[in-house]
Amino acid sequence: MQFFSVINFPVPLFASTTETADSSLVLASVLLSLVVIYFASKLGGELSNKVGLPPVLGELVSGVIIGVSVLHLLVFPETGVESSSSVIMKFLQATAGLTPEATPQVFAAQSEVISVLSELGVIILLFEIGLESNLKDLMAVGIQATVVAVVGVAVPFAVGTVGLIAIFGIDPIPAIFAGAALTATSIGITSKVLSEIGKLNSREGQIILGAAVMDDVLGIIVLAVVGSLAKTGEVDIAKVVYLIISATAFLVGAIVLGNVFNKVFVAIADQLKTRGELIIPAFIFAFIMAYLASVIQLEAILGAFAAGLILEETDKRKELQKLVLPIADMLVPIFFVTVGAKTDLGVLNPAIPSNREGLIMASFLIAVAIIGKVVTGLTVFGQPGINRLAIGVGMIPRGEVGLVFAGVGSASGVLSKPLGAAIIMMVILTTFLAPPLLRLVFPDTPSSDASASSSAQSS
Amino acid sequence: MQFFSVINFPVPLFASTTETADSSLVLASVLLSLVVIYFASKLGGELSNKVGLPPVLGELVSGVIIGVSVLHLLVFPETGVESSSSVIMKFLQATAGLTPEATPQVFAAQSEVISVLSELGVIILLFEIGLESNLKDLMAVGIQATVVAVVGVAVPFAVGTVGLIAIFGIDPIPAIFAGAALTATSIGITSKVLSEIGKLNSREGQIILGAAVMDDVLGIIVLAVVGSLAKTGEVDIAKVVYLIISATAFLVGAIVLGNVFNKVFVAIADQLKTRGELIIPAFIFAFIMAYLASVIQLEAILGAFAAGLILEETDKRKELQKLVLPIADMLVPIFFVTVGAKTDLGVLNPAIPSNREGLIMASFLIAVAIIGKVVTGLTVFGQPGINRLAIGVGMIPRGEVGLVFAGVGSASGVLSKPLGAAIIMMVILTTFLAPPLLRLVFPDTPSSDASASSSAQSS
Repeated sequence: MQFFSVINFPVPLFASTTETADSSLVLASVLLSLVVIYFASKLGGELSNKVGLPPVLGELVSGVIIGVSVLHLLVFPETGVESSSSVIMKFLQATAGLTPEATPQVFAAQSEVISVLSELGVIILLFEIGLESNLKDLMAVGIQATVVAVVGVAVPFAVGTVGLIAIFGIDPIPAIFAGAALTATSIGITSKVLSEIGKLNSREGQIILGAAVMDDVLGIIVLAVVGSLAKTGEVDIAKVVYLIISATAFLVGAIVLGNVFNKVFVAIADQLKTRGELIIPAFIFAFIMAYLASVIQLEAILGAFAAGLILEETDKRKELQKLVLPIADMLVPIFFVTVGAKTDLGVLNPAIPSNREGLIMASFLIAVAIIGKVVTGLTVFGQPGINRLAIGVGMIPRGEVGLVFAGVGSASGVLSKPLGAAIIMMVILTTFLAPPLLRLVFPDTPSSDASASSSAQSS
Repeated sequence: MQFFSVINFPVPLFASTTETADSSLVLASVLLSLVVIYFASKLGGELSNKVGLPPVLGELVSGVIIGVSVLHLLVFPETGVESSSSVIMKFLQATAGLTPEATPQVFAAQSEVISVLSELGVIILLFEIGLESNLKDLMAVGIQATVVAVVGVAVPFAVGTVGLIAIFGIDPIPAIFAGAALTATSIGITSKVLSEIGKLNSREGQIILGAAVMDDVLGIIVLAVVGSLAKTGEVDIAKVVYLIISATAFLVGAIVLGNVFNKVFVAIADQLKTRGELIIPAFIFAFIMAYLASVIQLEAILGAFAAGLILEETDKRKELQKLVLPIADMLVPIFFVTVGAKTDLGVLNPAIPSNREGLIMASFLIAVAIIGKVVTGLTVFGQPGINRLAIGVGMIPRGEVGLVFAGVGSASGVLSKPLGAAIIMMVILTTFLAPPLLRLVFPDTPSSDASASSSAQSS
């Protein structure tokens, strides 16, 4: 290490000049992590597909197996794991000359890179979902989707909050917090499963997708409300108004300006003559939208989805879908395997006494989470012959937003440990249950083999 | 920040749970960096193409403009830049609520992620180049490539070392070190330019590519020799023998086992039914090979090149090339723009007195670097009608390995500041001169517009 130090070097230029040892070890650890992730995703996805379940469930499960719960192949500092227990770091120590002193630094860098790659994965996923969705189809079911979203937020929130107070004797503020964690649907899981079973562009799929997007926005507003309630005891009206205005402005602005930008985008892409002439402008647009969405405190994935939706309106649609397909194939599995790997199933172990109180509350929250969304499907009106059950089931998976509630609530001391753990169990169970349930309630599902789905996407 | 702390939280699960503020800011900074990189790469690439130069030159130059030399939009800690002077960090402070306290941490994470993405970019580039090259064609010019490589290492090394001693009165060991820095060709720059001007599969292109690969291996062995010479005053024979054996074993093993693995790969890919059925196994293979190459102290890109070469032998070749194309379009520009952004042109400023001695030595090194490789082309025999000048010119760009010499030599105190700076100037100049020169010496170059090159690659 000393040998590569830059102290005496006047004009260090490239990374490889000054940090050869470190940066090549970070690269080696990222390469190994990707090999493990890809291997797990293919093994899990293929097995899941073979038994008739959506591949994404297999990716999540294989992520759990290689992650903090079982094999410790892919672990992250934020799950409370030390670098010394990472199997990949041990392997690098044995094969690549990684020293124990340098290990924490390499481990931190590797975790940071894989986490960002996984977030880029879900951004690309939502961009692809946007590219495969049609704005007019979405608008056509807009009223139904809005009703589903609002009912799907209100029912679990009310039943969860009241139930926790009445049955478990929880104080109102933590009960409101836990109730709020029941509201937001995981758009990533749901849209991926819908795409895999070929139902993304069904009427049911469009209602689920539209409602999930609105759910996410509503969930973020609810978080602002209960967050300030928990922190100061009162609601920060200004922040809530700001969020509502900025979210509305973003979505409406995206749709309205999108119609103009469409033509500009095609004109620019037609002018470009060097490689990446279509995909690079598309990514510039998608990443700017993702950045904007994240800056106004929405989620980056909503921006990417809006960008996809806007570009779907152009005649470059098919070509773009074809180009994004392999990029999504490369990056999206990193997201789902990482989600699995970061899931600590230890919280579900009833042998640990402190888990038991949480498990009982978790059973209640899971029941509310599932029933609360399934009844939501029944509110769909004016759509004769529609599969109402499927819509409700499609809204079941909670995800990132639910975990943010658990994290914020626990860190600020509002949630007791058992209640915090119960929320996490609810998120895990709904996430893992939704893919097989969705598969079940769409009985007329075509085979989801690769050739069928990729030709459907590129045709 | 305190709000999101995990101290009170028993079972943190996902990144978003425990580090919401940070991880979303890191993601935002990466998204912004990518927007800046893509914008610069397209602007530079298109302008370069318009004036008849290879697009990659424009990407390098636009990287210099957005980097540490001019705009400070994309800067890295290892170029001696503080997080406070990064324009992207300032922008995040103004728009996304980044606090000055959190800035160094976000800056470090962003730099780490972009650096790894850029290294993945050059790995994918060499994988793609391997997929477009043919092992038999390479072997057919194997003897010529070997002669070019050996002469191309020996001549600049000898002339550079002797010249520095005789003309500049440099001591033998630093002179040997600087001479060694003149040896290795940058395979990334050269292969990208050849691909852009449609000459990768010409006889000249194949000789250049084969010689560049061997050059890289020879350069690493030379580094081991002069490195131990500089450190201990004698040559570490054991390490040199280990390197020669492992490099030979890797290359021969890859070619021999590749013939068996070919069939296994196709059989596996044919079995897979879920999305990514071809690209994911291919990346598992490529990343394992890159890891192996880096572990035995070769470069990761050589492993990726070997993997591409092996998969080119399968009948999945065309399909893989088509899938890798958009992935390369997404990742490769990150590499070239980053190389430019990390280049500090301050070292070339003659107004700074301390640069002058270096500038004089640099002129000598640059002359040796160019002439030493150009005469190498003249040694090509048994290939009537071949463009010998083009072969020599194709070997001109030095790159990563040359910079490693400069870094190691300066850090260990062997190289004086002016001599270290002179080596860096030589690397910069040869890197930036090679693309236009290559374009010049291949006069019958077809138009390198996107449709032509992409259809050539996917047909």
